[in-house]
Amino acid sequence: MAAHPVSPLAPKSYPELPVIAGVRFATAEAGIKYKNRTDVLLVSFDEGTVVGGVLTRSKCSSAAVDWCKAGLPGGVARALVVNSGNANAFTGLKGKQSVQATAELAARVMGCKTSEVFLASTGVIGEPLDASKFEGVLDTMATRLTDGPWMDPAKAIMTTDTFPKLSAATVEIDGVEVKINGIAKGSGMIAPDMATMLSFVFTDMPISATALQALVSQHVKTSFNAVTVDSDTSTSDTLLAFATGKAAVAPIADLDDPRAEIFGEALRDVLFDLAIQVVRDGEGATKQVSIHVEGATSDESAFRIAKSIADSPLVKTAIAGEDANWGRVVMAVGKAGEPADRDRLSIRFGDLLVARNGERAAGYDEKATSAYMKGEDLELTVSLGLGEGRATVYTCDLTHGYITINGDYRS
Amino acid sequence: MAAHPVSPLAPKSYPELPVIAGVRFATAEAGIKYKNRTDVLLVSFDEGTVVGGVLTRSKCSSAAVDWCKAGLPGGVARALVVNSGNANAFTGLKGKQSVQATAELAARVMGCKTSEVFLASTGVIGEPLDASKFEGVLDTMATRLTDGPWMDPAKAIMTTDTFPKLSAATVEIDGVEVKINGIAKGSGMIAPDMATMLSFVFTDMPISATALQALVSQHVKTSFNAVTVDSDTSTSDTLLAFATGKAAVAPIADLDDPRAEIFGEALRDVLFDLAIQVVRDGEGATKQVSIHVEGATSDESAFRIAKSIADSPLVKTAIAGEDANWGRVVMAVGKAGEPADRDRLSIRFGDLLVARNGERAAGYDEKATSAYMKGEDLELTVSLGLGEGRATVYTCDLTHGYITINGDYRS
Repeated sequence: MAAHPVSPLAPKSYPELPVIAGVRFATAEAGIKYKNRTDVLLVSFDEGTVVGGVLTRSKCSSAAVDWCKAGLPGGVARALVVNSGNANAFTGLKGKQSVQATAELAARVMGCKTSEVFLASTGVIGEPLDASKFEGVLDTMATRLTDGPWMDPAKAIMTTDTFPKLSAATVEIDGVEVKINGIAKGSGMIAPDMATMLSFVFTDMPISATALQALVSQHVKTSFNAVTVDSDTSTSDTLLAFATGKAAVAPIADLDDPRAEIFGEALRDVLFDLAIQVVRDGEGATKQVSIHVEGATSDESAFRIAKSIADSPLVKTAIAGEDANWGRVVMAVGKAGEPADRDRLSIRFGDLLVARNGERAAGYDEKATSAYMKGEDLELTVSLGLGEGRATVYTCDLTHGYITINGDYRS
Repeated sequence: MAAHPVSPLAPKSYPELPVIAGVRFATAEAGIKYKNRTDVLLVSFDEGTVVGGVLTRSKCSSAAVDWCKAGLPGGVARALVVNSGNANAFTGLKGKQSVQATAELAARVMGCKTSEVFLASTGVIGEPLDASKFEGVLDTMATRLTDGPWMDPAKAIMTTDTFPKLSAATVEIDGVEVKINGIAKGSGMIAPDMATMLSFVFTDMPISATALQALVSQHVKTSFNAVTVDSDTSTSDTLLAFATGKAAVAPIADLDDPRAEIFGEALRDVLFDLAIQVVRDGEGATKQVSIHVEGATSDESAFRIAKSIADSPLVKTAIAGEDANWGRVVMAVGKAGEPADRDRLSIRFGDLLVARNGERAAGYDEKATSAYMKGEDLELTVSLGLGEGRATVYTCDLTHGYITINGDYRS
């Protein structure tokens, strides 16, 4: 795969993530597809670690997704194995066998049950993954597990990403600093629909598996599920959150515990930060756009309209061209199929009102609007004037870079 | 607007359309947006002409669409006015006034009722259309109505089209040659959803307005509504069919008349031919792709899966890159949300089986497949193995040309 230029929206610096007690990891070069870079991540969890997660809703999910789907109800995790370069998706019986073999290998190396091993694969679809590539590699990795730096796992899981994605939050619970670290990968085939590309979150919070699962499901809605790069939902989208319980506080048993909301907010911050980083690394992206829809008949309706705008190739190319083409925004509102009244619509780019009550705003300032469009972070607000429903979807522009990257992906 | 290179998929020659008794037209340069080209079309229909049509389902339809929506139930047409360069969409009260003024002007010039005037506008959204531009112009046009050549109206309605779109069919009814002519425009913002960009069809068949309407509604499904360029549905999509009744045969009163099916098939041929021309002029298109889905649980389910594949940016960029990336096809099947079983899926490019029962086909021939992908007309078939449902959707690839055209549309 050709290296692509680093996104102009890449962060200027990366956070240093703290150690999470009970979490150790190693990365390695298994040569699955790439040369001279790490492509396997092994994470080890101390006994007592629970897991919650959200997986792709694709009807053609990958073998690894199927494996996690079967394992999540158990709620217990001792190991995570992630590889990049090959998604092991649509590989039939071979894919299932490969997943089984990898889990057995990891279970042997880590001294745990196969049901306590979680797996994720990302990369090309349709090519069988050769599990024998992990033999030996995982054994060696298990001998050099470490608790940092977190940049290593973030890099090992990248595919067409142009920068690694890391985020961390700390939250005080009962006077104790609880930590949440997260990593993610993804820059194309991004429209998660109830899941994400690949993202792994680690915390030392003591929490039950059911409460963790509930919080992940709740906060994915306004984070990973509110972003879209190209409307294409991957067969491998996986978000897993692991809690080691090592922090010296009483465990959260369920959501009735008032601390669940506090912890949940911090978890949401990490998920949101990672999701936005995925958008900012969107293939070919030069601008990040937040699409706000308000005044809809319901939040769900607002979300569908925001998604319709965010996924519209004509809106996205106009933004790439720094063109405040609000006519295309109207088009995208209209095609969403949700309640909308053309003659009550108002549209703002940033604070600039461009359309009001179904026509160009009286004080529309083409010059100011054009100047605004040259920015890197744009806000687009559509007011429907029908009700109280609101939602925000985050996306990026559609540029020649996207075509270049995806017109030549396999070569 | 910059001129874009003519689509490589443009026809090598254009058909000469015959005279349709009862239909005369004129084109003119009103200077609505373009310089040195015609941008207004006036069509005059003899008394007794009936009309049927299908309009965009957009919730933000244009003023002209609203006008036609009100006029279609009347079923009678004496005039059609089409302008290019300005869609008069999302122009509020000014848009309504402009439409009313244009209809009144045309009615006066043609000596008919305003309710017998049909209107269509295409071009930029959100800019009020100055109806005074038509004053004088329509008067002059009315003095030089003619019955040919049909290339003139086809050219007058173009916007980003790189070639004019014409089609004709003749069908023998009761020993008489009945004629059907059609013209269309459109190359972007194409995913009609129960309508089309702009297309006008003219026939001398004697037929009731209700029967004509029923046939248009029926055959739009497998023609204009089965094509997509970029998944974006216009606010102005309009398909109108006019029947002058001048052919010397007994009229078709309703669909119980066995001749309705024969006439309908010919009508469908014209609609289909025009729809395919729109795809072949898709902005930036270098390849036409027919997406066949079979073995679905229903025809509707097959259609939604075919549409999901046809609208996927990753599938379309892979095709642009001449890459038989069937993994992305699997992705697009999976995200459609329709019943699908990964392990029963088969995928063919042309006659070449690339995937079978959920994995790469045993005899997969990379070389032959790559050679096939270099063609200009590609067939992609997905067999779901679940039922008898089938559908075909027609689309084009997604290239740098699309970004160039749409990243700089208004400038």
